[in-house]
Amino acid sequence: MALPKALENYRQFYRKIKTFQDIGSVLHWDSEVMMPPSGREYRAKQIAEISGLTHEWTVGPEYKDLIEKAVQSLSEVPQTQKSLWEREFSVLEDERKKAEKLPAEFVTEFSETTNLAHAVWAEAKKNQKFSDFSEILEKIVGLSRKQADYIGYTTEPYDVLLDSYEKDAKASEIDQLFQDLKKELVPIVESAPYFESPFSSRTTSKEKQEKLCKRLPPLLGLSFDVSRLDVSHHPFSTSLGKADKRITTRYSESDPLSSIFGVLHETGHSLYEAGLSEIEDWPSPLTEFLSLGIHESQSRLWENQVGRSRSFWEFLYPILISDFGLTEKDISFTDLYKSINSTKKSKIRVEADQVTYNLHIILRFEIERDLINGKIKVKDLPELWNSKVKEYLGLKIENDSEGVLQDIHWSMGGFGYFPTYTLGNIFSSQFFAAFEKETSGYQNSFAKDGDFSSLLKWLRSKIHHQGKIQDVNSLVSSATGESPNAKYLIQYLKSKVSEVGTI
Amino acid sequence: MALPKALENYRQFYRKIKTFQDIGSVLHWDSEVMMPPSGREYRAKQIAEISGLTHEWTVGPEYKDLIEKAVQSLSEVPQTQKSLWEREFSVLEDERKKAEKLPAEFVTEFSETTNLAHAVWAEAKKNQKFSDFSEILEKIVGLSRKQADYIGYTTEPYDVLLDSYEKDAKASEIDQLFQDLKKELVPIVESAPYFESPFSSRTTSKEKQEKLCKRLPPLLGLSFDVSRLDVSHHPFSTSLGKADKRITTRYSESDPLSSIFGVLHETGHSLYEAGLSEIEDWPSPLTEFLSLGIHESQSRLWENQVGRSRSFWEFLYPILISDFGLTEKDISFTDLYKSINSTKKSKIRVEADQVTYNLHIILRFEIERDLINGKIKVKDLPELWNSKVKEYLGLKIENDSEGVLQDIHWSMGGFGYFPTYTLGNIFSSQFFAAFEKETSGYQNSFAKDGDFSSLLKWLRSKIHHQGKIQDVNSLVSSATGESPNAKYLIQYLKSKVSEVGTI
Ligand SMILES: [Zn+2]
Ligand SMILES: [Zn+2]
Repeated sequence: MALPKALENYRQFYRKIKTFQDIGSVLHWDSEVMMPPSGREYRAKQIAEISGLTHEWTVGPEYKDLIEKAVQSLSEVPQTQKSLWEREFSVLEDERKKAEKLPAEFVTEFSETTNLAHAVWAEAKKNQKFSDFSEILEKIVGLSRKQADYIGYTTEPYDVLLDSYEKDAKASEIDQLFQDLKKELVPIVESAPYFESPFSSRTTSKEKQEKLCKRLPPLLGLSFDVSRLDVSHHPFSTSLGKADKRITTRYSESDPLSSIFGVLHETGHSLYEAGLSEIEDWPSPLTEFLSLGIHESQSRLWENQVGRSRSFWEFLYPILISDFGLTEKDISFTDLYKSINSTKKSKIRVEADQVTYNLHIILRFEIERDLINGKIKVKDLPELWNSKVKEYLGLKIENDSEGVLQDIHWSMGGFGYFPTYTLGNIFSSQFFAAFEKETSGYQNSFAKDGDFSSLLKWLRSKIHHQGKIQDVNSLVSSATGESPNAKYLIQYLKSKVSEVGTI
Repeated sequence: MALPKALENYRQFYRKIKTFQDIGSVLHWDSEVMMPPSGREYRAKQIAEISGLTHEWTVGPEYKDLIEKAVQSLSEVPQTQKSLWEREFSVLEDERKKAEKLPAEFVTEFSETTNLAHAVWAEAKKNQKFSDFSEILEKIVGLSRKQADYIGYTTEPYDVLLDSYEKDAKASEIDQLFQDLKKELVPIVESAPYFESPFSSRTTSKEKQEKLCKRLPPLLGLSFDVSRLDVSHHPFSTSLGKADKRITTRYSESDPLSSIFGVLHETGHSLYEAGLSEIEDWPSPLTEFLSLGIHESQSRLWENQVGRSRSFWEFLYPILISDFGLTEKDISFTDLYKSINSTKKSKIRVEADQVTYNLHIILRFEIERDLINGKIKVKDLPELWNSKVKEYLGLKIENDSEGVLQDIHWSMGGFGYFPTYTLGNIFSSQFFAAFEKETSGYQNSFAKDGDFSSLLKWLRSKIHHQGKIQDVNSLVSSATGESPNAKYLIQYLKSKVSEVGTI
């Protein structure tokens, strides 16, 4: 049966917006990966024009009217399809209504302030001086709370900000998950062994790394018919269109493992995007990614649960040895495997291993939540930061650049973003545990055949093809049979740490 | 003094259109150079959306109104600036009014027909059967004449089509130039010597060619701060923004000269675009390229007048020898220089040398002009084509694929495009002769220092920075002191042919 015309009209407008957003992704990918340096200024203008236009369309009266008419026409839709359409409009209107509540002057002020703050932050970080950043950070915190006030909240202002990245998440629930995790993590970190990377004493050329890295996306199921692997300053993945999901990495001659794990991580993101594009009526509001936490669960799953597993390396080790022009005597399987699962307390989040990483996130979540909720002041951040690092990781921060100034997020007004990283770790462990339970002998296919299709198939049906049909909690529950909980991440880390401690 | 508000408003709208056109260029460049194969379908949609939008804006009532108000406000502009503004609006309105005269149904039919024709042409060419293409070609010819009727002409319908590519050109004037040229060319071709390429018997790796080719754009004055060199199926150059002018080439292991001359050619195009972007109030209608003939003159000048000159190769020869891992015994300067300036009658335009190339163009011009003006019929094309090839080049066409079906242009409705190639050759010779006369000792800088800045400086001031301020005839006259004429091209080819015939 054909769609009521009003639904078709609204969807057409939606698709137009989506097409232009994807054009923005092309412009962005090119600017990070290909653009000659002097192109920057004009490209910024191109990107601003595209986002201006899509924003205008999204909040403008034409779209609003099309949506209203479409909602009215739902009475003509067969009962069986009705609830999907209702979900679609609820997802859509939630975003639109939030945007509507923010006065235009506020949006302008927010974006001007954060644009300015980026340079101030970078300079303060260079000079290791938090006090140079605190004034503008205070302004950003103030604006973020104002944003929460405009949109409205029931429990705490921080929930509003969180909601932009992790739909429907509540700080109190995340706090529960994170406290469970923290309690266990601190002793795990204490007992976890550290192993030096066997690569750190030798040089591995970019060409050798690239040869190996280019094998990985197709191996996991991301064909180069729909993807590319390139180099950029910060690795990322992006969707430029229905069948165009690109990833980047960077190569360090003294640390080839970082490019390998970067590629596994970004491939996981792109596999999710590729799976979403397979949903029958892509693109629609229900074929967009569900939340940042779910997105990150897909990257972390391939990076950690798969990429640090024994069976994965049983397959990849001989290929690595050959691609890198080494012998088994140069680097043994055991040394490689141990270094991949090594733990070391460190001060910098982006350099952290899979165990300590979550402590970095938990401390940021605790601090930014209190900051937004008005329980602490900007000027107290360095001291608070340093004492938490001492408490959770036993390390002494020597200057603000290796402490509270290390991350870009707050300068961009990105409060509520950090917790999604650890939510990703929690979800990925829970997903993988459910997959394991349902799939006997998968290790054999991983290790002997380099065949990961059983896992991809599971993810496609349980996660990717679900799109935005359910909310995060129901997705996790229906995929794993349990509400989101930290048990499986704790289990995974404990058993990993004990395994590598005894070989 | 500030601009009248109405002028500022109109320019702002102009710049918006231009920004989106440049976004279209990013999408196109990416699709030819970077995009994974499966991205094609969705990318076509993105490109169609962008060109739909820019077309809508260009012919829409808002722009028309802004232009009308801007024109009215010219009375407030100081006398000294008035004529420039008048030229700007005359250029602008000329294009807009032409577009207005074409009914929307006609534009749709034209584009649907040519879209269809592309596949028909490709299939007919594959099967060497012109008769399979003739029906749709007849339709395109009919539509093209209809287009000329809608727009209106004084002398002949072909002038209207020509005007889209070479503003203000008249077929009768081009015919005069081309007949002068043809009369001289036919005997030159007869006497011109052929020399085998010294590379044809050896393999030159893509890497070696790339090493040399990457030296060329910066050498000529196109820095990689504002450019890139990549590989694509058909070499091209494109402007993606004010300081983002990219070129492509392709590499053949048996013919490294083709990549070198491809890069010189495309660099010439991009140097012109880079020069246009240096004009103070870029972007405006007067900072766009003047005509395809002028654009092509800039590529041909660097490819032929510079790139096939003795002084250029005195500089580049030792570098080529070293980059290619050869010695002077492998390939001597003289053999290289002779092969670069070798002449050979051939049936395929895109493989033709600098001398015979123009005969390929002249025969196309003669045929397409008569076709559009109704003097000949589509069904007579093969016979006519073959007899002209026999007459001008002494060659016998064996099948339509090496004859009348070889080029894509007519299937796209591109009547009037071909002559701009030879206009480019005519202009480039005339420009270079004027530069030579004004610049003593330039050969020494070329040969000893690889310093081409005297030439670039001349082109910048006489051509590039002139933008669209004058029409083609006045530009050529003011740059060279003479109206466009074929004398310098004939002189150049004659002296080249006699030089390489006696060394
Ligand atoms: Zn990620
Ligand atoms: Zn050209």
